[in-house]
Amino acid sequence: MRTTVGIIGAGPAGLLLARLLHNAGIESVVLESRDRAYVEQRQRAGILEQGTVDVLRAAGAGERMDREGLPHDGIELRFAGRRHRVDFPALTGGRSVMVYAQTEVCKDLIALQLKEGGPLLFGAEALAVEDAGSERPRVRFTYDGREDVLECDYVVGCDGFWGVARGAVPAGLSRVFERTYPFGWLGILADVPPSHDELVYARHDRGFALLSMRSPSVSRLYLQVPQGADAQAWSDEEIWDELDRRFETTDGWRLQRGPITSKSVTPMRSYVHEPMRHGRVFLAGDAAHIVPPTGAKGLNLAVGNVVTFARALAYEKETGSGELLDAYSETCLRRVWQAERFSYDMTTLLHRDPDATGFEDRVQLARLERIASSRAAETDLAEGYTGFPLE
Amino acid sequence: MRTTVGIIGAGPAGLLLARLLHNAGIESVVLESRDRAYVEQRQRAGILEQGTVDVLRAAGAGERMDREGLPHDGIELRFAGRRHRVDFPALTGGRSVMVYAQTEVCKDLIALQLKEGGPLLFGAEALAVEDAGSERPRVRFTYDGREDVLECDYVVGCDGFWGVARGAVPAGLSRVFERTYPFGWLGILADVPPSHDELVYARHDRGFALLSMRSPSVSRLYLQVPQGADAQAWSDEEIWDELDRRFETTDGWRLQRGPITSKSVTPMRSYVHEPMRHGRVFLAGDAAHIVPPTGAKGLNLAVGNVVTFARALAYEKETGSGELLDAYSETCLRRVWQAERFSYDMTTLLHRDPDATGFEDRVQLARLERIASSRAAETDLAEGYTGFPLE
Repeated sequence: MRTTVGIIGAGPAGLLLARLLHNAGIESVVLESRDRAYVEQRQRAGILEQGTVDVLRAAGAGERMDREGLPHDGIELRFAGRRHRVDFPALTGGRSVMVYAQTEVCKDLIALQLKEGGPLLFGAEALAVEDAGSERPRVRFTYDGREDVLECDYVVGCDGFWGVARGAVPAGLSRVFERTYPFGWLGILADVPPSHDELVYARHDRGFALLSMRSPSVSRLYLQVPQGADAQAWSDEEIWDELDRRFETTDGWRLQRGPITSKSVTPMRSYVHEPMRHGRVFLAGDAAHIVPPTGAKGLNLAVGNVVTFARALAYEKETGSGELLDAYSETCLRRVWQAERFSYDMTTLLHRDPDATGFEDRVQLARLERIASSRAAETDLAEGYTGFPLE
Repeated sequence: MRTTVGIIGAGPAGLLLARLLHNAGIESVVLESRDRAYVEQRQRAGILEQGTVDVLRAAGAGERMDREGLPHDGIELRFAGRRHRVDFPALTGGRSVMVYAQTEVCKDLIALQLKEGGPLLFGAEALAVEDAGSERPRVRFTYDGREDVLECDYVVGCDGFWGVARGAVPAGLSRVFERTYPFGWLGILADVPPSHDELVYARHDRGFALLSMRSPSVSRLYLQVPQGADAQAWSDEEIWDELDRRFETTDGWRLQRGPITSKSVTPMRSYVHEPMRHGRVFLAGDAAHIVPPTGAKGLNLAVGNVVTFARALAYEKETGSGELLDAYSETCLRRVWQAERFSYDMTTLLHRDPDATGFEDRVQLARLERIASSRAAETDLAEGYTGFPLE
């Protein structure tokens, strides 16, 4: 098998890349180890930055998003019994975000790809990327019980943190940057309309809580829990009671309860692999970097990476110059590190570190007070949340 | 001896308070354990916020400052071989800072106080503050070899971190917030014109460095050194060589050398004592809080405290209401915690923590990149540097 761009992984990064390349008249093949149903069901992110929304629209994948997605013009911060709304468009010259689940983005992109794109093989498991440094890198994979080889001009690893693509960068040239956090998120889906029409980020002495949503009838809620906590150890009532405590306000606001349809614990990690390219193998999305979910940056970073790659390759096709491809890692990493910084800051702003000193607690509250009282500090947050510019 | 306000300590806080009270027609007595020459010589801060400049002028103590002080409209940040100027007036609607040493502020205030203020006793060592909870608190002190008592309506402890006033707050009602840092500042005075006309804050892989000045002919320079380092272990040449490395630029900028007239190491500490008031005893300046010097906030916080006290007492004299006096601690602490946060952020932004992980190093650089590329982030810094509003 032979193609121009071999794409490993049919998450949002790989699927969007296939779409962008198709639109630019460049051939690709997508290999995905899981089946279609799995890819369309796995719960992940749900907040699309302004830039991501723009990219999906421009790629022709925005129709259902614009119909069913929930445009959000702000978030609410709760701390010390107070509520403070951050108004995105007012602070950023009109930018906002869209609540539209990653599962829906994937469904839309899969449907498009199957209708008019290149091959998208489900159940095709990449085993290794070979000859990354050559003109003709190859992906060895299994499909339908047989081993096969995909010969490519370029390989893009969109295969997530556990994927094989990162292994194509020799260990001696790689550097890993990492941080773990002493807590995770217990996340639930509940069949109840969201109790607030925007996301609510609460910093409470008992820990962080987040009110989010998947649709006008499905709430998504999170509680900070100790690292390694077991979701099943929490009864539904305990979860609602704890959410009530952490979202507490003095103005009579109430959280609506409903049937919980899913419970799971997400660990929190920051991770960056440098460089993001070796020879003709490029890494995109979670294959190269992980952010804790507090800043809602994971999916959006992946989108930025594949836009940068598609532009660089189109530029090479037009001009014959590999300049932008050569700059891929550096270009992506500037934005990645801003998102890592932002995600780290949002995480430490809102979570209770069990080892925090009294001094650190007071500084955390002073930081929230600052955001609530300085337009500059609030704008800095709003710019980060609605997204750093695509380069 | 009997007065309305007993002031312990003739640093900038105590001296300015005596001046503000004098201008409001309120009697005070200042007790200072050291002699006049010592107070006028001890090297401390040198950056006056816009609000501090305004207060000194309004108090009638700004004449020499306006003649000899150096107005500064910005600072320079250096990192990763780059130079970035932060333009204060452009970012803050016209606010800036003044370089005028604390020693000079003290000289001006002492001269004024001796000319037209109430008693200012040098060599008067406060031993204890008694009956803080009563209507008539007392300061026991020694003067001229004898023990004496100062009976007051109010006592204000401006006697620094090691002073006795803080002891008037019962331990059971006190809470202390503290942070130490694994480094200090080796500071020098050198008889050479400053090599740059504004302060230069450098983040370098070898550690932080700061170029500052005392006057057009005297440079003040600092190097981050390990906690507990010995200033005398550094030769003059080693100091200049290390400064050269940390201020390195790619554009041919050079640091001018000159005779070093003073070398000392300053430890770095964050400290807050809550509350800042007990009964009729009030704490101001270093008696209640310490900041690391990176944000140039120590003197300016002390000024804010005594302005708040003088206003509150004048309000009580005018209206009979103790409302503002009762709110003193809370009012001051809001501003104190913003300054603590800012000083902590400036310190961690620019110093190399010997235990920092690679991830933390990258986030630190991303934070500097952010300040250099986002007007919002830069404004947040400029607002903090030129000073939080006096309440």
